[in-house]
This record gives sequence, C-alpha cells and structure tokens, in this order.
Amino acid sequence: MKFFAIILLFCVGTSHPVKAQENEDLKSVEMIFDEALSDNTAYESLRYLSKEIGGRLPNSPEVREAVKFTAELMRSAGADTIFYQEMMVRNWIRGEETASLISRVHGTREVIISDLGMAVPTGTEGIQAKVIEVNGIEELEMLGEEAIRDRIVFFNQPMDPALKSTFTAYGRAAAQRVQGPSAAAKYGAVGAVIRSLTLATDEYPHTGVTRYDEEVPKIPAVCICTAHADLLSEWLKSDPDIELFFRTSGRLLPDVESYNVIGEIRGTEYPDEYIIIGGHLDAWDTGEGAHDDGVGCIQSIEVLRIFTELGIKPKHSIRAVMFMDEEVSGTGSVTYAEHVRSSGEKHLLAIECDRGGTSPVGFYIDAPDETIARIVQWKPFFLPYGIHLFTRGGSGADVGRLKEFNTVLIGYLPDTNRYFDYHHSPNDTFEKVNKREMQMGSAANAALIYLIDKYGLE
Amino acid sequence: MKFFAIILLFCVGTSHPVKAQENEDLKSVEMIFDEALSDNTAYESLRYLSKEIGGRLPNSPEVREAVKFTAELMRSAGADTIFYQEMMVRNWIRGEETASLISRVHGTREVIISDLGMAVPTGTEGIQAKVIEVNGIEELEMLGEEAIRDRIVFFNQPMDPALKSTFTAYGRAAAQRVQGPSAAAKYGAVGAVIRSLTLATDEYPHTGVTRYDEEVPKIPAVCICTAHADLLSEWLKSDPDIELFFRTSGRLLPDVESYNVIGEIRGTEYPDEYIIIGGHLDAWDTGEGAHDDGVGCIQSIEVLRIFTELGIKPKHSIRAVMFMDEEVSGTGSVTYAEHVRSSGEKHLLAIECDRGGTSPVGFYIDAPDETIARIVQWKPFFLPYGIHLFTRGGSGADVGRLKEFNTVLIGYLPDTNRYFDYHHSPNDTFEKVNKREMQMGSAANAALIYLIDKYGLE
Repeated sequence: MKFFAIILLFCVGTSHPVKAQENEDLKSVEMIFDEALSDNTAYESLRYLSKEIGGRLPNSPEVREAVKFTAELMRSAGADTIFYQEMMVRNWIRGEETASLISRVHGTREVIISDLGMAVPTGTEGIQAKVIEVNGIEELEMLGEEAIRDRIVFFNQPMDPALKSTFTAYGRAAAQRVQGPSAAAKYGAVGAVIRSLTLATDEYPHTGVTRYDEEVPKIPAVCICTAHADLLSEWLKSDPDIELFFRTSGRLLPDVESYNVIGEIRGTEYPDEYIIIGGHLDAWDTGEGAHDDGVGCIQSIEVLRIFTELGIKPKHSIRAVMFMDEEVSGTGSVTYAEHVRSSGEKHLLAIECDRGGTSPVGFYIDAPDETIARIVQWKPFFLPYGIHLFTRGGSGADVGRLKEFNTVLIGYLPDTNRYFDYHHSPNDTFEKVNKREMQMGSAANAALIYLIDKYGLE
Repeated sequence: MKFFAIILLFCVGTSHPVKAQENEDLKSVEMIFDEALSDNTAYESLRYLSKEIGGRLPNSPEVREAVKFTAELMRSAGADTIFYQEMMVRNWIRGEETASLISRVHGTREVIISDLGMAVPTGTEGIQAKVIEVNGIEELEMLGEEAIRDRIVFFNQPMDPALKSTFTAYGRAAAQRVQGPSAAAKYGAVGAVIRSLTLATDEYPHTGVTRYDEEVPKIPAVCICTAHADLLSEWLKSDPDIELFFRTSGRLLPDVESYNVIGEIRGTEYPDEYIIIGGHLDAWDTGEGAHDDGVGCIQSIEVLRIFTELGIKPKHSIRAVMFMDEEVSGTGSVTYAEHVRSSGEKHLLAIECDRGGTSPVGFYIDAPDETIARIVQWKPFFLPYGIHLFTRGGSGADVGRLKEFNTVLIGYLPDTNRYFDYHHSPNDTFEKVNKREMQMGSAANAALIYLIDKYGLE
C-alpha cells in the first residue's frame, strides 16, 4: 500500500563554513534547552505569582503586586530597561455567588456557580425563575420569545470532544457565554446560566467575560460547573417546572489605572528593532492564574534570563511584555499597539504565550509564506525536543494587534489537550503546571528568538 | 540562511480507486478518534482500577481483583474469547517503613522513605549507621571498602534534567537502585538509601525493584523522597557524622499463583495470526498504578471496545494482553512468550503501552527498515492529532520477548516530560491522568492497529 510516499530531502549545505555554522547553532540551541531544563527560577517565580499573589483581575490589588513582582523579576533576569505603560481599565469586582435548584420532584439543592466577568448583580433578593435549556444561541433563537420570557435561560452547549483542537471546541461553545445573556434578554429572559466551558465533568465553575448588548436590558449571568449542568439537565427531563435561584453581587465601579510591564535587553546591532514575547498578567480571580497566563508571563521573562545567563547579546532589542487586561477588555494590547504607532518603533517579531504551560508542540505563524518557510528551516533543531509543528496559524489576542505594523506574529503552541480543565476556574493552580513541561516551553521560545535574532527574517 | 531545505513530496496515488481508498481510511481513522474522544468507558474503568482496587503487587489480593475486573471489562468490550495464563510469582510483601536522620548539629528528624521491592527487612531493631553519600555506583567503587564499611550508602545521583528524554535520564540513574545495594554490600555497607528517581523535588518516595547479587550479603535498601535526599545531602556538608536510622519489615514469602489476562476478538480472515496490544496489570502498591500501568491496560482493552462499537471486524485476531509481574520479575512476559513458542501462534504485531497516560507523541518501532517505512506511510492520518514520531526504537519489557518470533514490535510513546513525577510513587493516582490525553492514546493505538490489520505489514 503506498498511500503516501514521503521523500525527505535534507539538502544540508555541505561546504565547511555552513556546516560549522549549523553545528554552532545546534550547540547554542542545546545550551538554551539545557539552561532552561536545569534551572528552577522560572518555576519558583510561577509558584510565587500563583500561590502568594494568586488570581488577579486587571483592577485588583493582586495585579498591582504582580506588576511590581514581574518588574523585579525582569531586573534579576538581566533586563537593562524596565518600564510601565499606563492605562485605565474596567473595574468589575466579584461579590457573593450562591445558587440552588428548586424542584417539586427532586427537592432543593445548592449548585456551584460563578459570576461571569462584567455581569450585573441580581440585587440582594436574588432572582428565581423557571429554567429553559438551550443548546446554544441558535436554539434560543429558534424557540423565540414565548418560550423564553421571564425564564432563566440555561445555555448547555458542551464543548465538542470529538473536535481535533480543544481551542476550536472552546471557540464554538464560547459564544453562548459571551453573547448568550444579551441574546436571551432580547426575548425577555430574566437571567442566564451557562454550562462551564471545559471537557471535564467536575465541580469547578469556569468563568470568563460576558459582553452585553447596550440595546437590551442587562440580565445577571453566571456559569455553572459541568457536573451540576448535567444534573440540572437531567432533572429538567422529569420536572420541566424546576426553578433556579441565584444571587450575585459582582458589579462595575469607576475605571482605575493599571499597567503593562515591559522589560528589555537592548540590542547590540539593531537597538531600534524589537523582538517581543509576552503573556497577560491579569487572570481570573477564582483561580491562581497559573496556566492562564502566569506561565506565559514567566516564560517570557525566562527568555531574558536564559540570554543573560548564557551571555547571549542579542542584535535586536528583546522585550518581555506583561500585557494587562487580556481577559476583560484587551486594554493592554490596545495600549501597546498605540505605543508602537506613536513611537514608530519597528517590531520585527511578536510571540504570544497564552495557551498554557504544557509540553511544547510548535508555533503558529502569521506571516507571508516565505517567512514561514524561513522559520521552518530551523525545525530540525527543535524536533529532538518533540517540537514539530511550524505552520500558519493565529498568534493571540495581545500581539495580534501588531499585524498592521507588518510584524511577524507567532502563537506559541503547547499541547492543549488538558488546558480547558484549568482555564478560568479554581482548578487553575500552580500544582497543575509541570516544571519540565513549562521549562521546555521557555526553551522553545528562547531558541526560536535566538535564531530569528541572529539571522533575521528576510 | 539555508541550513535545512526540506522538500516534502507527497507522492499520493492519483488514480481514483487509490484516492477513494485513502479517503475511506481517513474516515475510518477519524471515526476511531471520535469514538475514543466521546466515550468515557475507558476513563471510568481506569477510575475503578485505580481508586477502588488501587496499587497491586503481582502477588496481592488487589491484583486478583484486577484480574477479574479486566476480564469482565474485556467481555463488555466485545472480546469473544477470554483466558488466563497461570504462573508462579515472587511473593514480596511490604511492611513497616520508618526513617530518621540523627545529627548532633541539626537535631533529629523523620524523613520519608519507602522500601524497595524485594528488599530484605532490617529486623525489628532497625539499622542505624553513619551515612556516606555517593553520586552513583561508579563513585562508590572509587571510594572503596575503607570509606564504605559499616556505613549506610546514600546513592544520590539525580536524574539529569538536561537530557532530552526522561527515560534516558531514568535509565542512567536507575542502576543505583537496581544494583546499588549489592554493589554497596560488596564493600561492607550495612544498608542503602537511594534518591527517588524523579525530576520533581517533592515528598513522594519512588520505589522500584532492587536485584540482589547472590554472592554478597543482602542489605536492607530503601528510597528517600527527593526533598529529603536534598536535605540529607545539605546536612552532610556541615555534619559528616550524621546517622540514618531506618526500619523496614518488607519480606519474601513462598511464591504464589498469578495470571496474565487475555481478551481476544477472533479474526475473520487470518484467525490464527495475532495482533496484540498490552500493558502490565501489576503496579507498585504505594500508589494507585494509574499511569504505571493501569492506563496501558485500559487503553489496550479500549481498542477492543472501539472495534466492537464501530462494527470493525478485524481480519487478524486482536488480543488485549494484561501482562502480570512486569515490575518485579517479568514472569508474565516470559509466560506469554512461552505460550507463543509452544503453540506456534503467528504474532504479526505486538504493541506495548507502558509509558503513561499523557498525550500521544508517536510510536517506537522495532522492525526491519522496510516495515518502518510502510508504517510511516500512514503518518499523515495521525498528524492532525499531534502524533508525529514514527521511528526506530524499543518496544518495552513485556512484548520485547516476542522478538525471537519475528513479530513487529512497537512501543506506544506518549509525552514523557511529566511521567516520572508519578512513576512508582504515591503520586501515581487516577487524578493525574487526564481523560482526553488518555483517550487520544487509545485512539492512536486503535487507529494504527486498524491500518495494520487491514493492509498487513508486508
């Protein structure tokens, strides 16, 4: 059977200088991995950020502590310049969260919920109403006003486990959380409860932002853990009159100041050309923000530390960027892009690390074909570490805004099979990040930046 | 820069029948992944095996329960024939385990140890002696008798984090556990304490078998958790007279009967030719044997369930094999190989699943070059799931014995970055196995067996 005959021709340059260059680069890449795998600074920093500081909304005291902590860390990592970018962020704060199912058939029981970010509060009385289950926004719209009015809409569309990418599964189901509450309000719903976006069946509520349509009344909206979403769905089958009660007091206060944090190693040859790598420093407050996205922040700073430790003097200026407010309004990415626009700084490359701290798989590259081909040339350096995917793909919400500046955008891609078990939930804790998997990711990014800095992208 | 110019020529057959065949196979592979990713039977079975049955030495009541449980599971998975292979196994049982450091400088404190499998007991008094630290067997031999006599030898060689493969790092450091105690006894040591074989710094002792040399006295031997190995090493720097006390009562009783469990779906075209996939059912008793190797057993049975569920009637007979006693003496693999020898059964393919339940990376293939090339042809079916490594490599301790029968041997390879955090320790629990990662592995194996069964290997 010859379905696929694959012929691999490694046309390696055979002249001695090229071969010597290649060996030197291979040696450098191995030194970078050795350094990352043998040093615990990054892992211990993530421990501090997760366990000592913890969850950190962009407007919180915790995030201000994280701003100071990462700035200090950049200094120890050898950054020669550290600065902040000021911005005003939305000031939503979480309050009380309780919920119960009330059924004449099954009795009354508490269920585990969590307020959605930016959701309006229920008032001290809470809300109680009959529940109507829908499998996403399309089904809601098919049912229409008669079925929906005065109800709490239970959006129970699960992430599809059969999809190859968990991010695709998340993307498809996330609409019900982001637009669902306002879609339900259009038909007269009084509240919304959203199935947590995870492939696991457990008792962690997975929060996230909801975005209200200003044209319709804002209704309270919470997520419910998957175990209790299944329970509610089961109960509804034998008791369609079941009521849900919930009370939340999360609310929006006047905007406050917050910051991007940036640490830089000045380039030796092209100091005015930038290579940046970043994650977002804000994190949902119900967990510790370890996988999302403490790890991306710390891995970015670790690139600076590895360069400093190994005495690598980059030709271009290398920046680690801690973006603020990715989870709520994306203010940090807007602020950074505005800085690039107004300063006219040339940004050669921007890597986003915001898919968790598991083992590296590869890189999604958003650039012209010839740039992708150039990066793919270096793949053999990465294969021994299991890093095999160098392909066209999206970068991320924070660096994506630099596209207008012709920056080559890259999304660092770890294995995402288990990422949504943690994402936006109390299960996103330091203990769920494996040291070596995290270290492998830092090394992958540092090695790629090393090669791009050395040889450029043209 | 053109270090590597990679030209990929996919010489896909363009005639219509071949293309149609390819599409049909792609569809079958996708159906296999869909089924594995959408069904929780395997994950719930692993939960039962880990949490309800738990750790299971080859001679234990737990393993007998596991034998019955997996036989039943094979029946539900659609096996038409289920049988046992009887054998006698070593009957080592764990007893009391306590240890303390006694230092005039630092005081006295308990440390966490665990008996090594097959180790002799200390006697009720325990043993107490000065400690000499060595970085593996070579250093022990350099020090010689004068330094070693009447001491407890502290083998403190860590796994090397800079090595690309954690299995290589394990293999290099494991000699001190397997041969260390007898090597120390040759020079008059009274006991041995081995640094736990893991890259993590934590309080889990990682046990494993030790093998005594019959020519020298058998001395008690334990492993110590890495946190306390580091502590002991630190204390020794300022107090070389530090003593270690430990008491163990693990001991060997007369051999008992145990079993391999085999479930089979009879082939439609070549019923006398076998494709087997297996893991080992025994597991160290200090944990739950989830990653090592409950997951390999359940994934093997899951192949049968997927075939049955999708109505795939294999041409060859497919067997799931639960090997017994991999951890202590390898009796199950010997017994299975003897069965093959005496029955003359033709074994086309044997896959071993014994590297944990993380995301699949690929397959190590132990076969002639042309067979490997044949299997590599199917790689494009697997790449969308991140399964990319199809290369020459070792299979495993259980199926490895079938090499003499010209069986193609394959070692299923998941991502091994975090495997040794769990291996042989109380940390090897069900909760550390991610459902989707495990499901991806089952699917990878089922899809490969599907293709090999359909097209053969010649």
